[in-house]
Amino acid sequence: MDFLKDAREIKDFIVGLRRQIHQYPELSGREFKTSELVADTLKDIGVDELQEGFGETTAVVALIKGNSDRTVALRADMDALPIKEETGKPYASKIDGVMHACGHDAHTAMLLGAAKLLVKHKKKLKGNVKLIFQPCEERQDCRGAKRLVAAGVLRNPDVGAIFGIHVFPELETGKVATCPGAALASSDVFRIKIYGKGTHASKPHMGIDTVLIASQVVNTLHHIVSRRVDPLDPAVLTIGTIKGGEAENIIPDTVEMAGTIRTLNEDVRKKIPLWIEEALRGITSAYGGSYEFDYEEGTPPLINDKKVTEFAMNSLKELLGEGNVLYLEKPSMGGEDFAEYLKFVPGTYFRLGTGNREKGTTYPLHNPRFDIDEDALPVGTAVLSFLAFKWLSDK
Amino acid sequence: MDFLKDAREIKDFIVGLRRQIHQYPELSGREFKTSELVADTLKDIGVDELQEGFGETTAVVALIKGNSDRTVALRADMDALPIKEETGKPYASKIDGVMHACGHDAHTAMLLGAAKLLVKHKKKLKGNVKLIFQPCEERQDCRGAKRLVAAGVLRNPDVGAIFGIHVFPELETGKVATCPGAALASSDVFRIKIYGKGTHASKPHMGIDTVLIASQVVNTLHHIVSRRVDPLDPAVLTIGTIKGGEAENIIPDTVEMAGTIRTLNEDVRKKIPLWIEEALRGITSAYGGSYEFDYEEGTPPLINDKKVTEFAMNSLKELLGEGNVLYLEKPSMGGEDFAEYLKFVPGTYFRLGTGNREKGTTYPLHNPRFDIDEDALPVGTAVLSFLAFKWLSDK
Amino acid sequence: MDFLKDAREIKDFIVGLRRQIHQYPELSGREFKTSELVADTLKDIGVDELQEGFGETTAVVALIKGNSDRTVALRADMDALPIKEETGKPYASKIDGVMHACGHDAHTAMLLGAAKLLVKHKKKLKGNVKLIFQPCEERQDCRGAKRLVAAGVLRNPDVGAIFGIHVFPELETGKVATCPGAALASSDVFRIKIYGKGTHASKPHMGIDTVLIASQVVNTLHHIVSRRVDPLDPAVLTIGTIKGGEAENIIPDTVEMAGTIRTLNEDVRKKIPLWIEEALRGITSAYGGSYEFDYEEGTPPLINDKKVTEFAMNSLKELLGEGNVLYLEKPSMGGEDFAEYLKFVPGTYFRLGTGNREKGTTYPLHNPRFDIDEDALPVGTAVLSFLAFKWLSDK
Amino acid sequence: MDFLKDAREIKDFIVGLRRQIHQYPELSGREFKTSELVADTLKDIGVDELQEGFGETTAVVALIKGNSDRTVALRADMDALPIKEETGKPYASKIDGVMHACGHDAHTAMLLGAAKLLVKHKKKLKGNVKLIFQPCEERQDCRGAKRLVAAGVLRNPDVGAIFGIHVFPELETGKVATCPGAALASSDVFRIKIYGKGTHASKPHMGIDTVLIASQVVNTLHHIVSRRVDPLDPAVLTIGTIKGGEAENIIPDTVEMAGTIRTLNEDVRKKIPLWIEEALRGITSAYGGSYEFDYEEGTPPLINDKKVTEFAMNSLKELLGEGNVLYLEKPSMGGEDFAEYLKFVPGTYFRLGTGNREKGTTYPLHNPRFDIDEDALPVGTAVLSFLAFKWLSDK
Repeated sequence: MDFLKDAREIKDFIVGLRRQIHQYPELSGREFKTSELVADTLKDIGVDELQEGFGETTAVVALIKGNSDRTVALRADMDALPIKEETGKPYASKIDGVMHACGHDAHTAMLLGAAKLLVKHKKKLKGNVKLIFQPCEERQDCRGAKRLVAAGVLRNPDVGAIFGIHVFPELETGKVATCPGAALASSDVFRIKIYGKGTHASKPHMGIDTVLIASQVVNTLHHIVSRRVDPLDPAVLTIGTIKGGEAENIIPDTVEMAGTIRTLNEDVRKKIPLWIEEALRGITSAYGGSYEFDYEEGTPPLINDKKVTEFAMNSLKELLGEGNVLYLEKPSMGGEDFAEYLKFVPGTYFRLGTGNREKGTTYPLHNPRFDIDEDALPVGTAVLSFLAFKWLSDK
Repeated sequence: MDFLKDAREIKDFIVGLRRQIHQYPELSGREFKTSELVADTLKDIGVDELQEGFGETTAVVALIKGNSDRTVALRADMDALPIKEETGKPYASKIDGVMHACGHDAHTAMLLGAAKLLVKHKKKLKGNVKLIFQPCEERQDCRGAKRLVAAGVLRNPDVGAIFGIHVFPELETGKVATCPGAALASSDVFRIKIYGKGTHASKPHMGIDTVLIASQVVNTLHHIVSRRVDPLDPAVLTIGTIKGGEAENIIPDTVEMAGTIRTLNEDVRKKIPLWIEEALRGITSAYGGSYEFDYEEGTPPLINDKKVTEFAMNSLKELLGEGNVLYLEKPSMGGEDFAEYLKFVPGTYFRLGTGNREKGTTYPLHNPRFDIDEDALPVGTAVLSFLAFKWLSDK
Repeated sequence: MDFLKDAREIKDFIVGLRRQIHQYPELSGREFKTSELVADTLKDIGVDELQEGFGETTAVVALIKGNSDRTVALRADMDALPIKEETGKPYASKIDGVMHACGHDAHTAMLLGAAKLLVKHKKKLKGNVKLIFQPCEERQDCRGAKRLVAAGVLRNPDVGAIFGIHVFPELETGKVATCPGAALASSDVFRIKIYGKGTHASKPHMGIDTVLIASQVVNTLHHIVSRRVDPLDPAVLTIGTIKGGEAENIIPDTVEMAGTIRTLNEDVRKKIPLWIEEALRGITSAYGGSYEFDYEEGTPPLINDKKVTEFAMNSLKELLGEGNVLYLEKPSMGGEDFAEYLKFVPGTYFRLGTGNREKGTTYPLHNPRFDIDEDALPVGTAVLSFLAFKWLSDK
Repeated sequence: MDFLKDAREIKDFIVGLRRQIHQYPELSGREFKTSELVADTLKDIGVDELQEGFGETTAVVALIKGNSDRTVALRADMDALPIKEETGKPYASKIDGVMHACGHDAHTAMLLGAAKLLVKHKKKLKGNVKLIFQPCEERQDCRGAKRLVAAGVLRNPDVGAIFGIHVFPELETGKVATCPGAALASSDVFRIKIYGKGTHASKPHMGIDTVLIASQVVNTLHHIVSRRVDPLDPAVLTIGTIKGGEAENIIPDTVEMAGTIRTLNEDVRKKIPLWIEEALRGITSAYGGSYEFDYEEGTPPLINDKKVTEFAMNSLKELLGEGNVLYLEKPSMGGEDFAEYLKFVPGTYFRLGTGNREKGTTYPLHNPRFDIDEDALPVGTAVLSFLAFKWLSDK
């Protein structure tokens, strides 16, 4: 069996699906047409089971049954971004202000391709393959993966390993890459409200200056990463918004701020909000003010299982050749909700090269000119289907 | 002649005018009805000259001619505030959201009363009295006094001294008070824009963090008063607004701030913007950012001429009795554009007691429940007319 | 009687004493020879009572008895400074490293001169004069005035008013000046110790960084004057020393700081240490550290009694001519323990002009080249004796 | 050949040398007796060449010649620390206040043991082994490795690879560990002098407050790691000392600080001093002050060559068994001048387990109670000799 050859043979099928989805992008939580297309295609392909409306979402989950009770999962995300496409391509988005600028169209099409190959080789499958078409990856408050996990997507049958891929314009077509262990960051959000006492600007001693307190809070929060966190544990604390006051001659009652925390490590992640609150309590009280602190957990750090990753790397070297399977030098401080699956099931998240300078597919993700080299689509289909096949065959 | 007795005799006239104006308050620059009423009343009174539309404003300037070419000026301001009155008085504002919460209704009525008395005693006047009914005291950008001065209100004939009064709920009815030298603060406005480089929150090293830079600027600006200014020169620097950023996970390109500077001394006033800019240049460059700084001069410090004040204090002791004429313990960091006249002509600005606990007239200025004890109106009329009369008689 | 003429007649006597004291300056608390000279001279002059070793100090207190039980006090301070004189004058200090660089030699000599004149005119004295020759003005921890007051120097007989003078090189010879109310500042000292947790520089997360905490404390303390204190109440908070750490690669366990607080107002003075401690508690806790705070009260603000000052100003205009008696534009943030007497007894502290550009006597106080114009000595003697005489004659 | 067995057979020889050196520890740059002992022992062992006084230091460099012109180097450091030993062991330091608390006694003894084994198996050696006994590892300003490299220790014959080991109490005896790539941090030192303008504490506006400026500098420098450095590049900036001012009531002319920078990456290392200077220039100028900045480069980051490390890991698994050869989870922010060799020659620095809870050898390095489990000595000898032998045999 040569999954790469097989995948190339159905390239038109994959490209067609990708372009179809690309032209009708749908925002997080509203992937109605996309999930309908996915479900219809899976039926055509002939998967064994199909579960629409999973967890009251637009998710589509399918099962291809093999010759054992071991199960491996493959996941693709389906949602698009509120970005106005500027590629000028014939298959560009037909929905104004919505665009598949993060490649989820490709992810979905490649997984449908993988489904087709796995059904084709179903008799040789040494177990089941669960196909997860997930909504709501782009919006933190929408929690696509978390809700699917809570709804039992990793059970019935129990999933033993999971794989996913993401297009990556910085890597050239034909290559894949990952890093073992922590690969992508947790992404949490905090909101702070500083309370003081409004007063006329000319009588500062009659009030408590929230603008000054807020500035000291900003100052001290930026000492958390440099002093409180182990320098060997990457972490980011950023305050993205600050807002207070209506008139230049009135000290406002409150100032509000919001920011985000990124870590590669659950321990550090758990401590930072405690340090923020310790800083807030101290700084506001130093000036006679008070505060409100709201912390909203987003996705956890994405931790690629070391053993499964080693297995997957070796498998992919076999599929793509040694030079096309790379270790990433460093993790990334970006986030990805594939991490939610990896909290419960070992697995690996790969980056799939889609960069081709000549074809102009090296614009970064989320850029209005972002596009992929479609030659990467059969590679992705082969990677997904081969990893599932191989993992089920292993031991 | 007893100006106090005279004034009490026309109390109904003054109260009537005050209530009329109070019911139809007009915002800064739109004192159309008020100036019409003022002009009509002055004509009835029989002033010698009347100049409407002075300097293309709603100002009304009148002249009562006496027996010399010496001239003294008396000034009242006419504009109201964007405040919704809550006094529940029968003569409360009939204009929703606009209120004479700073007593300019009383100032105008008292000066009209003074005009009436001065015309009555015109034969004994040893010179001219110029009556200035000024618009636009409440809004810095409207510059009532400054524009009148520029339009020549202190010339033709040349004014030798000027007096004004302001109602003061903290002082009881029947009393007046002032302080020689610096009595009210300059009031300038500054606006700052911090420029950095926007970036995703997870990649702070790719950007320049304007929220952090802005917080350091706030921090350092609050060291100017404590370290740069002579501790014996009162000064206030307040930042009333800060605003930057749209999303918690994006470092914004810019953060904006605005604030105000108050001083009692032109030297300090001139230096503070230089120190602000020195701080801005240093702090922004320390973080790799840049800035824009806009400084808008408002009213200067109000400096009561020491000699004229001594003369006025002695005169008023004669009029009101020694115990009713007080020196203020301290100046105030509030501002008042009467200062613009005092830059060119010696004079004094008095506070007129209108506080009466039993009548409930002790709410602070600008409070929706603010009201005056109307028994103070004839006192104010007497003060203004007597000061003019006395000053012309002096020497 | 003409006290100025009388004083000029004994100029040699005063100058002789001044030069004698100048050559043998003695540090605070060790004014042994000086007090011996004072006591001997007072005996020669013929005061009525002499009390050496007052309150177990080197103070000399004498009484000249007049015709009533009213008593006025005059005070001079006697101690010198640890400064090496560089005037090169023939009467320069013979004690290496000790110098009368603050004019206390002159103060003592002028008060001895005044004693001589008052004894001369004793029959016309309408009450008693208490002469206080005080040690320990220069060193805060030595508390000359405070200890004398505690030892009862203002009782037996009870003192009704007190006067003192200080040489002032910025004012020309022949003139005196003062300001009513707050004239000199309180002067308190604080010491802060920041506690954290020492650690190796490469593992900041294992410790608590006292250098960083101390810097935030400095930062926040400098916001007290600009935000907490009424801008119309002059106040200074300065941190003069900071010290922590022994090696560049070890975060130290502690950092220490010390500073001083100056105010012209007991209310502000009492609040500032509370604000400091509020800031310390907040800032140290924001970073997980702790602190020790020690506040040592020094001299209080020097408050010249307004009525006595008005009386004294009028008296001195009579003595020296109107043009030679001035109001100071502003108080000073310097301190002086004459304030301790003024807490209990009304009085005034005058500055005596000793500046003469041609004679080179305009170096500032505490400068190694400081010297006085000796023509000022009889003026000072006349001022002191006349104020005592006049006050006793008043009413 | 079994290097581990061979090494165990000469355990007494190694232990004897280690104890001898341990009892007579010598500070950096003064390793006179130690280098004499090393040279004498090497002569006894029978190395082919011996070069004392290398580069005018106390270094001892020896050559064992094998059957090719390929050369591998092994390095041990010889200096002790200014620490008073508290182990109470019979072989404890006999030099008061000096102690081998960092295991360099063991390093030297183990390398002498390796020399003995390599001479024994010299006929089978497929190339030369250079033995480097280095002084001055402990003191940054003494620059042991850097001076040897400059003096040509890696040439004549040219060294193709280098290995070294360090005792490690956190790892149990019998195990070794390393990490590929950046393993230990660069360690640089900076000194800052802030210049302002001294003045009396009560007149801050007459001076420029260096204590305040220094605190703002501390504040801003701690934003460099959190904002300027890629969060995926570990870095530490610590300020270990701050000092300024002599009296609480005088603002000092200068404040001095010193600190250290640690990085795992030459790019980051090069940028941090630029950012420090940008911050210094900005912050001092914001307050009207100035600065002096001195940056002293110490050791570079220690970068284990990835290929050589993989080779060495595989070799050591063969020697010690797979379970005894570990990858370190993380690098360390500590420094080590073995990095100087690795700038020019590929190689690996290993940590050698010496921890044994029962024997009480788990005190941290630099602790006065630090000791090693001597059973680790033959392991270290085997590791060093086997790595050299294997590398020469490779390819």
